[in-house]
Amino acid sequence: MKKSFDLSLLTDLYELTMMQGYFFNAPGLKGVFDMFFRKMPFQGGYSVFAGLEDAIQAILNIRFSDQQIDYLNSLHLFEKKFLQFLKTFAFTGDIYALKEGTVVFPNEPLIRVEGNIIQTQLIESMLLNFINFQSLIATKASRIALAAEGDAILEFGLRRAQGVDGSLSASRAAFIGGAQATSNVLAGQMYDIPVKGTMAHSWVMSFDNEFDAFEKYAVMYPDQCILLVDTFDTLKSGIPNAIKVFKKMKARGIKNYGIRLDSGDLEYLSKEARKMFDTSDLKETKIFASNELDEWIISQLKQNKSPIDAWGVGTRLVTGEGEGALSGVYKIVAKDEGRGFTACIKISNNPEKISNPGIKNIYRFYDKEGMAIADLVFLQEEEKKLTAKIKARQPIRFNHPSIDYACFILEDYSHAVKLLEPYVLKGKKVKNSTSLKDIQILAGKEVDGLHPTFKRLLNPHIYKVSISDDLKELKGTLVKKYCDPCHY
Amino acid sequence: MKKSFDLSLLTDLYELTMMQGYFFNAPGLKGVFDMFFRKMPFQGGYSVFAGLEDAIQAILNIRFSDQQIDYLNSLHLFEKKFLQFLKTFAFTGDIYALKEGTVVFPNEPLIRVEGNIIQTQLIESMLLNFINFQSLIATKASRIALAAEGDAILEFGLRRAQGVDGSLSASRAAFIGGAQATSNVLAGQMYDIPVKGTMAHSWVMSFDNEFDAFEKYAVMYPDQCILLVDTFDTLKSGIPNAIKVFKKMKARGIKNYGIRLDSGDLEYLSKEARKMFDTSDLKETKIFASNELDEWIISQLKQNKSPIDAWGVGTRLVTGEGEGALSGVYKIVAKDEGRGFTACIKISNNPEKISNPGIKNIYRFYDKEGMAIADLVFLQEEEKKLTAKIKARQPIRFNHPSIDYACFILEDYSHAVKLLEPYVLKGKKVKNSTSLKDIQILAGKEVDGLHPTFKRLLNPHIYKVSISDDLKELKGTLVKKYCDPCHY
Repeated sequence: MKKSFDLSLLTDLYELTMMQGYFFNAPGLKGVFDMFFRKMPFQGGYSVFAGLEDAIQAILNIRFSDQQIDYLNSLHLFEKKFLQFLKTFAFTGDIYALKEGTVVFPNEPLIRVEGNIIQTQLIESMLLNFINFQSLIATKASRIALAAEGDAILEFGLRRAQGVDGSLSASRAAFIGGAQATSNVLAGQMYDIPVKGTMAHSWVMSFDNEFDAFEKYAVMYPDQCILLVDTFDTLKSGIPNAIKVFKKMKARGIKNYGIRLDSGDLEYLSKEARKMFDTSDLKETKIFASNELDEWIISQLKQNKSPIDAWGVGTRLVTGEGEGALSGVYKIVAKDEGRGFTACIKISNNPEKISNPGIKNIYRFYDKEGMAIADLVFLQEEEKKLTAKIKARQPIRFNHPSIDYACFILEDYSHAVKLLEPYVLKGKKVKNSTSLKDIQILAGKEVDGLHPTFKRLLNPHIYKVSISDDLKELKGTLVKKYCDPCHY
Repeated sequence: MKKSFDLSLLTDLYELTMMQGYFFNAPGLKGVFDMFFRKMPFQGGYSVFAGLEDAIQAILNIRFSDQQIDYLNSLHLFEKKFLQFLKTFAFTGDIYALKEGTVVFPNEPLIRVEGNIIQTQLIESMLLNFINFQSLIATKASRIALAAEGDAILEFGLRRAQGVDGSLSASRAAFIGGAQATSNVLAGQMYDIPVKGTMAHSWVMSFDNEFDAFEKYAVMYPDQCILLVDTFDTLKSGIPNAIKVFKKMKARGIKNYGIRLDSGDLEYLSKEARKMFDTSDLKETKIFASNELDEWIISQLKQNKSPIDAWGVGTRLVTGEGEGALSGVYKIVAKDEGRGFTACIKISNNPEKISNPGIKNIYRFYDKEGMAIADLVFLQEEEKKLTAKIKARQPIRFNHPSIDYACFILEDYSHAVKLLEPYVLKGKKVKNSTSLKDIQILAGKEVDGLHPTFKRLLNPHIYKVSISDDLKELKGTLVKKYCDPCHY
C-alpha cells in the first residue's frame, strides 16, 4: 500500500510563478540542481540519507488535474497558455542520487536533478520535504541505535509526531536508521515494518485490579506479553503482580514475557526489577523501558549498567529532538541555454555558504579494512582523468571547500566508490526499488564502515568532504567573475 | 478538497490488542477518556487549541477494509471473531471538545470521549496525533504573530516540515494562530488559505544578470512583485537593481512592490534598504524578511525598530522550534460496567501527574472587560449547583489541582462560560464545521482576551487552572483508595 493522495500541488507557490516565468521567457532553458545540506544535525558526526524512494514516487506521479488547474486559475496569477501546458505536465528529467541508507556529510550533493528548468524548479519543495525529514529521522534513529549498543529499539512515536505523515515517514526512516519495529499499524502495513506494542494504563485501569488486568492479557497474548507495571506502584504492586502472572505462564511452559517501565527512575527501577525477577526464578523476564528517551538518556543508562533489554522511543525519535529539521537546500549549479552547460554559483556574504558550481559527483575513498577515509566532490568532466588516477592508486589532492591553502594529499587508499547513480532518466525509473529491510541493512553497514571517532554522540571527529582541483579552480573563477572584491 | 487516504489503521498496535482484550473480556464496558496536556510549550503563557475538525473527520471515517483486515490477520495476533467485528466497526460514541482556536492551559480537559471502551480506546493515537501537532503549531504561530505586532506573517515551511502532513497540517494550524498566508499550494487548496510567494535565487541565477531577472519578473507579476535581492550582493547589486525596476513600475503607475531580505544582518540591511528606497522616491516599497526567523528574533528586530513590513517564517514555525511536540495525553477518567459510571484515576509517584478523575467540564470566568480570569474544572454532577451559584454571582472556591491548602475564592467576576461542548453524539456530528477563517478570528479574540502578562514570550504570568470542591474531594478519596500511603 502506498500513500496515495494527490501531491501534485505540494509545492511552494513561487515554484509555480517561476515556472510560468521560465515558460514564457526561457522555454528551452535547462537547469541542473544539487540537493545538499549545510550543517550536521544533533551535533553528530554523520547523517543517514533517506526518503529517496518516496520522493521519486511523488515526483513521477505529478500530474495536474482539471480541479487543480481550476484552483491555480482562481489565484489570478497564471495565464491560460501556461495552465494549458500544466495539463500535459510530467517530469521527464534525470535524477541522480546516493543509495538510501548511505552515510552522508554536509556540503556534498546527495541528489542531482537535470532537465528543463520548468520541471527541475517545480520539484524543489517536494524533494526537500521528503529528504530533509526522513534523513533527519534516520540519523536520529541511527544515533539512538548506537547508544543502545545492539538492544532492540521500538519506535512508539505516532501520538506525538508532527502530523500523519510526520508519523508514517518517521516510522520508515526510523526503521532505516536501525529501529526494529514500530507501534504504528498503518506504517507497518504501508512500509512492511514489523509492528509491536505492549499495553496502556487504561487497560489496567479498566479492570478492578491490576492482577486481573495482567492475567487476562497474558492469556490472550502469551507470545507478546509485556506488562506495563507503573499504573499504581511499580515495585510494590506492578512487579509483584507481574511475577505472579509470569510464574503461572512459566508453569505452562511459556517464557516469552517481560515488563515495561514507563515512569520513575529507569536505572533504579530496572535494577530493582531485575533483582526481583532473578530471585523469583524468572531470569528470562525481559525489561522494556520507555518515557521520553533519546540517545543521551539511553547512553547514560547503558553506561550505568541498567539491565534494560529493549527501548521504546517515541517523541524524541520521530520529531528529531534537538534539531527540528535537516538544513537541506536545492541550488542551481548549471544551466544550458542551448549552447551546452555552464556552471552557476550562488554567492553569499557568508563565504562558507558559496555553493559548489557545476555538474558533480562524489568519490568516497576507503582503506584496506573497508573503512571510509574521506569524500571528494569532483566535476563530471574530470571523471575520466580522476578515475584513471584512482585505478592506478595515484596520490589525489583533497582541497578544503572554502579555505584557500587547506588541502591534503591522499596516498594510502584501497579503492574509491562513486556515490551518485542514476535513479530516473528521461522521467523513467532506471533502478528497481530496494526493500526497506535492505536499506536498513545498508545503513547498518555504512555506519559500521565509519571509524568510531566519527560516531561519538558529542564532539565527534569531523569527516572530510573536499573538492577536486578542477572544482576548486572553477569555483575560484566564478567567484571572481561575480564579485571581485568579494565582500564578507 | 480533503486529505483522503485511508487512515483507519493510523493507530498504535496496542490499541488494537487492547480492543481485542475488551472485546472478549468486557464487551459492554464503557470508558470515558480525557485528552489534556501537561506542560506549556515554548515556556509560554497560553496555547491555542487546534486540530479538532481534522481529528473528528478522521475518527468518523474509520472503517476497516478487507485488505486492512487481511493485514491484521497476517500479524497472528487477532482472532477471527474479533476481525469479523472490525469489519462492522464505526465510531458511535460521543466527543465533547473546546472550540478550535480557544486558548488553553495545562491539566484541563480539551476533549472528552465517551462510549464503548473498544471504540474510545482505538482512537487514542489518532486523536493525539492531530491535536498535539496542530495545537503546538497554532501556539507557535500565535507567539510569532504577537512578536510581529500586527505585521503580516507568511508561512514558508514546506521544505523543512516534518513530512507531507507536517507541512499541510502546519499550514492550517499556522493560519489559525495568526499567519496570513502560506507558500504551500496544496495546503492553500485543501484548507482555503491564501497562498503567497516571492522568488528563489535560482530565478535570478537562471538569467545572465540580476536586473534582467528582476525586470522580467516585474512584467509578469506587477501585483506581487517581491524581488529577492541577496543573490550576489544585497546593498551593491540587489537593491540598486530593484530600485531601477521599481522606478519603471512607478512610472507606469504600479506601486505594489517590495524586496525580500534572506541573509545577512536583517536589522542593518533593512535600515540601509529603507534609506535607499526612501531617498529614491520609493517610500512605498515594502521590505520582507526571511531566514530562520522565530518569535525571539522578530521580537528583537521589532524592538530595534527594524523597518520590516512582513515576515516569511518557515522551519521554526512549522516544526515548533524549541518544542518538538505538545505533551498531550489521553487518559481514562471513568468507566461503566453496566451499573453507572465510576471515576478512574491514574496514580503516579509524581504527584502532579495524578490525573483528575471523573466526567468533567470547565468553566472559564471573565471580568467585566471580558478578560479571562481563571478556569475551574468541575464534575458533571455538580454542574447544576455550580451554574446556579455563578448565575447568582456567588463566590466560588478555586482549589489548586494538587497542592493541598492552596486555594482562592473568586468573588469579583462578571460571567463564566462552559468550555466543553458536544461535537459528536452517537457517532454523528452535531455541530457544523467552522471555516478556518472564523477559527483564526476566534483565536485572535481569545488571545486579545488574555491579560498581557500571560502573553510575555518569556516568563509569563501563570494562568490558573483549578479544580472544584467536589472534584477535589473525589480525587482525594480515589488517591487514598489506591495508595495509602501514597509514595512519591
